[in-house]
Amino acid sequence: MMHLNLFLFGCGHHRAAWRHPNSAVEQLGDIRYYERLAQTAERGKLDAVFFADGQSTGNVADGSYWFLEPLTAMAAMSRATDRIGFISTVSSTFFTPFHAARMMASLDHISNGRMGWNVVTSMFDVEARNHGYETMPAHAERYRRAEEFVNAVLKLWDSWQQDALVMDRAGHYADPDKVNPINHLGEFFLVDGPLNVPRPPQGHPVLFQAGASEQGRTLAAQCAEAIYAVAYDLPAAQDYYRDIKRRVKDAGRNVNVPIMPGLVTYVASTEAEAKAKQRELDELLPADASLRQLGTYVGQDCSGWELDAPVPALPSLEVFTGPKGRYATVLRIIETEQPTVRQLLGRLAAGGGHCTMVGTPESIADRMEQWFRNEGADGFNLMPPSLPAGIEDFVDQVVPELQRRGLFRTEYEGSTLREHLGLANP
Amino acid sequence: MMHLNLFLFGCGHHRAAWRHPNSAVEQLGDIRYYERLAQTAERGKLDAVFFADGQSTGNVADGSYWFLEPLTAMAAMSRATDRIGFISTVSSTFFTPFHAARMMASLDHISNGRMGWNVVTSMFDVEARNHGYETMPAHAERYRRAEEFVNAVLKLWDSWQQDALVMDRAGHYADPDKVNPINHLGEFFLVDGPLNVPRPPQGHPVLFQAGASEQGRTLAAQCAEAIYAVAYDLPAAQDYYRDIKRRVKDAGRNVNVPIMPGLVTYVASTEAEAKAKQRELDELLPADASLRQLGTYVGQDCSGWELDAPVPALPSLEVFTGPKGRYATVLRIIETEQPTVRQLLGRLAAGGGHCTMVGTPESIADRMEQWFRNEGADGFNLMPPSLPAGIEDFVDQVVPELQRRGLFRTEYEGSTLREHLGLANP
Repeated sequence: MMHLNLFLFGCGHHRAAWRHPNSAVEQLGDIRYYERLAQTAERGKLDAVFFADGQSTGNVADGSYWFLEPLTAMAAMSRATDRIGFISTVSSTFFTPFHAARMMASLDHISNGRMGWNVVTSMFDVEARNHGYETMPAHAERYRRAEEFVNAVLKLWDSWQQDALVMDRAGHYADPDKVNPINHLGEFFLVDGPLNVPRPPQGHPVLFQAGASEQGRTLAAQCAEAIYAVAYDLPAAQDYYRDIKRRVKDAGRNVNVPIMPGLVTYVASTEAEAKAKQRELDELLPADASLRQLGTYVGQDCSGWELDAPVPALPSLEVFTGPKGRYATVLRIIETEQPTVRQLLGRLAAGGGHCTMVGTPESIADRMEQWFRNEGADGFNLMPPSLPAGIEDFVDQVVPELQRRGLFRTEYEGSTLREHLGLANP
Repeated sequence: MMHLNLFLFGCGHHRAAWRHPNSAVEQLGDIRYYERLAQTAERGKLDAVFFADGQSTGNVADGSYWFLEPLTAMAAMSRATDRIGFISTVSSTFFTPFHAARMMASLDHISNGRMGWNVVTSMFDVEARNHGYETMPAHAERYRRAEEFVNAVLKLWDSWQQDALVMDRAGHYADPDKVNPINHLGEFFLVDGPLNVPRPPQGHPVLFQAGASEQGRTLAAQCAEAIYAVAYDLPAAQDYYRDIKRRVKDAGRNVNVPIMPGLVTYVASTEAEAKAKQRELDELLPADASLRQLGTYVGQDCSGWELDAPVPALPSLEVFTGPKGRYATVLRIIETEQPTVRQLLGRLAAGGGHCTMVGTPESIADRMEQWFRNEGADGFNLMPPSLPAGIEDFVDQVVPELQRRGLFRTEYEGSTLREHLGLANP
């Protein structure tokens, strides 16, 4: 069976989504908006709702990056739902392992075993400078820290044995022999333990990772129980999928680690309508600012580019002297989609390097099935360009099609996130 | 009007409460237990529910100190209620100001303006050793850090102006001129800001403090908007009350800072029944362990002491060579209450140095009124010895009596914690 997450992000993953007349921008501070989105995802029998996170504000003129903090929001969202899982990003660079382990253990109790943790190391100096660092620690140091952080968190979750809570009114509340210090002392952390929260219902909240770099892939192979990926098309997805599956095996882990690439979908009952939905959002992008930003990606002044004309020819990746990652994405979009300038801006504004599928429920299910059956994906991290409309479209139109094909559950079989993902309790 | 908080603590503030046949010990990991307690407190029109917090496990054999983490629990509890406030302890010694400011701002949005923050500096080496310190930083350093921490958090909450969110679909999401960095750089923290959560509905979640030491009182006078106190009897309460009110005035603050001493109550329709309730809990204390602990307080072997006999004579405070604080409490209980050994153990096991009132709703309301009318208290931080029974007794019996006397609200007039406490938005 396929796994499906809703990747929840403001008014949707298209940067102009909040500008749409039907957007919920006024509700971004209202927890009921998030609760309803979780209920919609649960109606679609999705595995989980996922929150990205960042530690800085971003450009507040151009849209909303963050509003509610994920852990507090998920506590409320878990109470508005019964079965769906919740995965929060928590950075290993800014928290102490004790706080992280404790909050996630608490949420696993509050949700009756529905929590997951997407461990990230964060990237930007503006984030570091909100948490005491003058600049972001170097990539290698962040990953050494992340590895030690995860290790300390897992030990804290294990510091209470499964049957430690006795609650014998005439005797012990907990068996002191089954609640033990961890005495962790490493390069970055000193943590005596035990945790002050009894063992989480799932044993450990499910550990997600999204490693793309060499060190990220190594960390994912060592400890991730499920993986988010960025893949522009099936060949790229297959490369990543096969590499990670091999690394997991090489790390001596005999487990199935589901891999879920991000997926942006525009769904409608005809291809033309779906394309019209995409165009409607693309047309909401402020042209000047978007062309200015595109200029920084491609290293030239784009302010004179005609919006509805094809993208002018660009130098090849080899001769381009600026940052190559985003430029490669631009070239790939141009090569495979021959977009107009406006279409290119829209693609970059919604998911960037992630796969985008535009079409009918059947044609989207076809492509998802192709990825699923050909070592491209064990599931998808759904990135609706607009919310709530984008996830309602998916749940009401694509999910039934996947269910008809026997690719997706028609009812939850388990009640924990581990059960949804087919993962055993540790 | 009087202010009343429910100080929520496990199965109640009596250390043996979990051993009672009717205790909710099996529900300590169940968020619905906490939601129901908050609903009971809201039925009584209380100002808020308050969570203490600690960063270590305590003696897990003898009872439950912590289970759910307060911020995550309060997110859920706020969704199960409409009007009552929530005050969480957050230590300035272990969090970064950005995390603390962000989580509390998020909770203020989730609860529609019902959050408060009890700032503490933490005390114990076992807590420090869960967060990277070999030993707890010295008292003076912790307070310097707390002052800078509070300052940085307040600046982060102010980093979004009230009207910064424009949400103009054809223009700006937020006005960039009204979202500003704080560029904090102090002895302990570097925080650029702005916060990645728009300004909280209350401006600032309400700042509580419970300073007893000289430095604690100074910090409270400088920045606290409401204060928790420990006062054994009315004279002690008056000393503290007058000292703090004077300090607030001396600090140039023309505000009314409500002071709420902790209050343990055993309520029943007759004095004898109330005493029987107290005795019932006291008799659940494991005698050997309690006498051993008492021995550490009074510096002698108490294992041979007869439980139902009067407490043997003890040396005066002046000649006692051990830690004086707890010993002074023991002497004061003996002097004012002439307890049996079991009664002394019970008093120490439920609130210790806090005021304890045992009696009918009328006699308890009499004493509360006396404190309230005579500069002893602006309200009380209720510490029910057992939960849920103790808060149900108080809400059903004492609250109506206070309402009849015109001392306590019969309906919420406002919807935010600031409004309940009579505090203006900053």
